[in-house]
Order: sequence, then C-alpha cells, then structure tokens
Amino acid sequence: MRFLSETTADGVSEHHFVLGDITGVLWSPAGADGDRPLILLAHGGGRHKKAPGLLARAHHHVTTGGFAVAAIDAPGHGDRPRTAADEAAAVRIREAVASGGPVAPLVAAHNAALATRAVPEWRATLDALLGHGRVGPDVPVGFWGVSLGTAVGVPLVAAEPRITAAVFGLLGHESLAGAAARITVPVRFLLQWDDELVPRSSSLALFDAFASRDKTLHANPGRHMELPTSEVESEHRFFAGRLRASGARQAHH
Amino acid sequence: MRFLSETTADGVSEHHFVLGDITGVLWSPAGADGDRPLILLAHGGGRHKKAPGLLARAHHHVTTGGFAVAAIDAPGHGDRPRTAADEAAAVRIREAVASGGPVAPLVAAHNAALATRAVPEWRATLDALLGHGRVGPDVPVGFWGVSLGTAVGVPLVAAEPRITAAVFGLLGHESLAGAAARITVPVRFLLQWDDELVPRSSSLALFDAFASRDKTLHANPGRHMELPTSEVESEHRFFAGRLRASGARQAHH
Repeated sequence: MRFLSETTADGVSEHHFVLGDITGVLWSPAGADGDRPLILLAHGGGRHKKAPGLLARAHHHVTTGGFAVAAIDAPGHGDRPRTAADEAAAVRIREAVASGGPVAPLVAAHNAALATRAVPEWRATLDALLGHGRVGPDVPVGFWGVSLGTAVGVPLVAAEPRITAAVFGLLGHESLAGAAARITVPVRFLLQWDDELVPRSSSLALFDAFASRDKTLHANPGRHMELPTSEVESEHRFFAGRLRASGARQAHH
Repeated sequence: MRFLSETTADGVSEHHFVLGDITGVLWSPAGADGDRPLILLAHGGGRHKKAPGLLARAHHHVTTGGFAVAAIDAPGHGDRPRTAADEAAAVRIREAVASGGPVAPLVAAHNAALATRAVPEWRATLDALLGHGRVGPDVPVGFWGVSLGTAVGVPLVAAEPRITAAVFGLLGHESLAGAAARITVPVRFLLQWDDELVPRSSSLALFDAFASRDKTLHANPGRHMELPTSEVESEHRFFAGRLRASGARQAHH
C-alpha cells in the first residue's frame, strides 16, 4: 500500500492510497497515530470513493467517534479504468433506461460481476490498513455500503471474520440471500419506502435473510437516492455501540 | 384534575391524579415548575399506566430531556373498574386463546371499542395537564403508544392538533388506515419482525398509510412483547428533535 498526498481539514486527515490497481482513501483524526475502530465505506453504482454520502459519513465517524474510515473505488469506478466489459455493461444499462426496458436484471448482473472482483480487493485493502499506524493491527472493523455497496458488502462480510458490524440497504435479495444467511454480526438495513429501482418486497426479503439476531430495519419515505441524512448520526451510534463492545470482548478473551 | 400522592425518586417526581373516572400519573423533573414538552404514554392491552415499558420511557424522557410525561389507564385497565362488556370481551379473548381459535379479530374489535372511549379521555387529560405548573399552557406535545396504545393513538393524533409527533407500532392497518391517512405529523413506527399477533404485511400497510412525510419504520427481530430497549433512547432523540423544532416554529409564527 502506497500513500499519496495527505490533506487535513476540520481536524480530519484525508490520505489517498494505491494498492496494486486499487485506488482508495483513509480518513482519520488529524495527526493522531494509535489504535481505533475502522469503518469501511463502499460506494453505490456509478459513484466513487469520495461521493457526498461517503464524505459525510467519514467526517462524522472521525470527528464524533475518533474512528478511522476507509473507502476504495469499485472496479471501473472513480479513478480506476473501465474494462471493455464494464463499458459494454454501462451501455446496455443506459440503453435499457432510454428505451424504458427492464433495468433491474442488468444492474443485478453487473453488480454481481463487480462484487466478484471487489471482495478480494476489500480483503487485501483491509490486510494493508490494519498494518497502518493510524488504525492498528487488531481493531474492530465495521462495514457500510448501500445499493452496489450492499452487493459487494454482503459476500464480503459473509467471508470476512474481522468485520463485526455492518450497514446495508437499498438492494433486494436476488443472488444475495445465501450469503446473507451466513452473516451473524449486528446488521442495520436501510430501505427507501418509495425506491423506484428496488421492489419493497425484495428488500424486505433480504433483511429477512440475515441470520443476525441483532438486526434492525430502518425504512424512510423517498426514492432510491433520497436516503435521509438523519441516518448518518444513527449509523454512528450503531457502529459506536457494536465496535466498542466487540473491542471489549476481544480484550477480555 | 385532582392530584393525589407525589413521590420522588432519582430526580423524577411521580404525581398520581384523577380526572373524573380517569386514573393517571404525571412524571416531571423533581421540584421544577416551568414550561416543558409533554409526552403522552398509552399502555398496551391488559396492562396499565405504570407498566415497565412506560416507566422506563417516563424516566428516560424526564432525566435525559427534562420533559414532562403522562400516562392514564385505558378504560377497564389498571386502577379502573371493568364494565360487564369489558369482562365479556376479556372472557371471549381468553377462550379463543385457550381453544386456539382466531384471536386477532376479537382483539381488534375490543381495541376499537376501547379507543372510542379512550380518545375523549386523552383529550380531556391533555386539556387539564396543559394547565399544570409543571407543564405549561402552550408546550409541544408528543404521543407514544404501541399495540392497544396505537389503536387509541392513531384516532387520537388524527383528531388532536396539539400533538405534533407520535410513536406507534405493533398493530396492523385494520380499521386504522383511514385515521392514519389524516396524520401528517412526524411518525416513528415500531414493528417486531416475528410478531406472533400482528401479521407483518398488516403492520407494513399501516406504516404505509400515514400521510406524514417525516416517518420512519424501525423493525427488529423478536415477538410482540420483545420490543428491544434500545428503541427507548432512539425514541427520545426522535421526540427531542421534533418537539423542540415544533416549539421553535410556534415561537416564530
């Protein structure tokens, strides 16, 4: 992992990094080395590691909780090149939107293909970040990702025992129910009541599929992109409660 | 409204009152007169004004927010006598439970009958409490009630413009969808994912029916009576945000 420029604003350090092909960013309290919980943020389809929803969450978790937060660009997103297959998928989706054809199956297939590539990237990123002086080698780790971030995150959290709390949402159960049934860590699930892209019944089925005993669904009015900002503060309390408890458990055993 | 004994514990005054046939209790910060938001708590079926869930909420709202909180016994509940009709309904419900017959229609009919009596009682109680020195004449008012408390609360909040934020839940849309569609104030709705008494689809339909733009559904695993205590703190933030904002709006107009 090679760190590039570091900038600091409002007490938050923003440190861009490269790991092989992966482009990412680590946010942490400015100038403060030391062990702290780490939250991984996965962006939505067509967006990137510094999309507004991710920046807002990164700053809130760093300034309110003193956490470290990291995001990477998904394959073919942000600062990363698109493959010919990525381009072809994007064209198919744009054409379906333009013609009013069924978009959801195309998006689901593309999400699943991206997730297959993104899961090992996230695990390699996590390996590298846990060796960083601003994070620490054995800290509790949380995951946040909605929409494409959930398509990537559900198989990631199912496979990755170091992640002990997760926020998902804005996606249905298609192709994810099996991995969700292997997840037992605390889960918060976000559903937009008027989501024009994801059928409500499919989102409810995905929430249902998580094996976690500690899981809560938050549903708010609004369309797919209209997640209310009030959930940011609520997510922080979710992570703060679970990641501290998880760290305390590790310390006792 | 006649006030009976007052006791104080942990900084919380608990003041029992009688208003006509109604038996109730007002909680407030000990020894502190003055205007403060008021939260009304309505208990569930077969329970009473000082059920554990209500006591926990009253103490949290008073000690954390400095609010006033009031609860009354529903007709035929707590310190109030049962009528012959109440007794007959209770017998029918017990027999249905014992025989494994359909309980939900009997409970719904009894709830609706109780609500018809309870709504004017709550409005009279509110009239009287707003003249009390521990509350103040023109303060923002919130309502909390789940199960039977929602059967009473939905028609109450639909009819009562002084209530400007409400928490409902653990009940379906049968006979309530019409009143819910007249509610536009902020709503928090609680759903137990494994509710053995209320079908999930019916609860989701009631949440859907509220006309409020600011409404959030919180769903947690567990049965009807297993509402997690973590929702108490979350409800307090809901009321604190909405009742302060509501007070500020009143002050500006």
